[in-house]
Amino acid sequence: MPNPTAAMLVIGDEILSGRTRDSNLHYIAGALTKHGITLAEARVVSDDHAEIVAAVNALRGKYDHLFTSGGIGPTHDDITADAIAAAFGVHIGLRDDAVALLTAHYQRQNLPFNEARQRMARIPDGAVLIENPVSIAPGFSLGNVHVMAGVPNIFEAMLASVLPQLTGGPPLLSQNLRVLRGEGEIAAQFGALAAAFPDLSMGSYPFTQNGAYGTNLVIRGTDAARLNAAMVQLTELFG
Amino acid sequence: MPNPTAAMLVIGDEILSGRTRDSNLHYIAGALTKHGITLAEARVVSDDHAEIVAAVNALRGKYDHLFTSGGIGPTHDDITADAIAAAFGVHIGLRDDAVALLTAHYQRQNLPFNEARQRMARIPDGAVLIENPVSIAPGFSLGNVHVMAGVPNIFEAMLASVLPQLTGGPPLLSQNLRVLRGEGEIAAQFGALAAAFPDLSMGSYPFTQNGAYGTNLVIRGTDAARLNAAMVQLTELFG
Repeated sequence: MPNPTAAMLVIGDEILSGRTRDSNLHYIAGALTKHGITLAEARVVSDDHAEIVAAVNALRGKYDHLFTSGGIGPTHDDITADAIAAAFGVHIGLRDDAVALLTAHYQRQNLPFNEARQRMARIPDGAVLIENPVSIAPGFSLGNVHVMAGVPNIFEAMLASVLPQLTGGPPLLSQNLRVLRGEGEIAAQFGALAAAFPDLSMGSYPFTQNGAYGTNLVIRGTDAARLNAAMVQLTELFG
Repeated sequence: MPNPTAAMLVIGDEILSGRTRDSNLHYIAGALTKHGITLAEARVVSDDHAEIVAAVNALRGKYDHLFTSGGIGPTHDDITADAIAAAFGVHIGLRDDAVALLTAHYQRQNLPFNEARQRMARIPDGAVLIENPVSIAPGFSLGNVHVMAGVPNIFEAMLASVLPQLTGGPPLLSQNLRVLRGEGEIAAQFGALAAAFPDLSMGSYPFTQNGAYGTNLVIRGTDAARLNAAMVQLTELFG
């Protein structure tokens, strides 16, 4: 059975303007690979209601899971929760358990649980909260969509809360051979090897070192024995 | 007149598996912002013909420009040029000027211009070559789609070749106020300010410093006078 598939949706003007370099995509790519979920696509959209709704509906229908990052804080540009509710056509409002979590959190800090902070307790109907051990304000899962914060350490903590609950397949394994030959020199034989192992994925990634061309040859797959068999042949060819 | 819009399409299994952290999206985001082109969306897809074709056709129809990175080398997993040709429904084949560039390049290096390397001279009909001063094998523009290499220094050099030829609007300007108060404390007043300047875009980005919450308040727009006026009010509120 093939592994479950997933998409990642990064939400935020700051990524597209170049102000902030996203790190959540690279983080979740590694985490999903280890968990045996295939990250098949990623998108970045701006803080625009219609764009978020359209991307959520396109991706949640196409893949087993959709993970989102960004736009669930207390300010006016945090519009993700409302967009998710709209994408599913469900009501969104203050939720008692989220209110309770945040009320206790701000009481401990002697800070008012004001209207802006209450925005973070607005959760679409039918969602399950995702724990946020860093700053308490929860994410949520609605159907196959997992809505998380954009701040990297909070995103990572939320992912650690939600990922163990999702069924994964065998982890995607990867082996690597670094050769000091250009891609154009190894392409024909490497392509033939890839064709002989259609159940594995083979990629080549060029680099330069002291002005000379080199290539990283990468083989990926979930079956360790097949991976080893291919690596033996790869090493005979180029090792 | 609003600035021209663009999308970025990153092509490559290695990004989605977590092996490689993409840097081209962040680079082009900054470069387009300076050039006065609004990067409105980005996508990452795997080395899959049908997925590349679908993404190219969705994005080239929606935005003024589409930039792609990855998949134009000599190996079997380099399938971008064929996918672009298929997306446009045009023929692809060896092109004389690209063959001439690469023949000379490999002659200088005393390397054979073999079948794999000839793949890099396959260009869709009607395209204009994009100069590659780093490793010679060209990118190309077909209509509003600009196809570039994935290796960051080559991508950046190709973008420097193509960007001056594209009409941009006024650059997107940005100013920033760093306040040592949490988002939830400043959200109401910041939201009111954003509503008073609907021609500007305002975003807030939380951080923690020595265990205390702080927020970067960012105002973006193309009109320096309006930006300054908003910053005066922002500084009065929180400075």
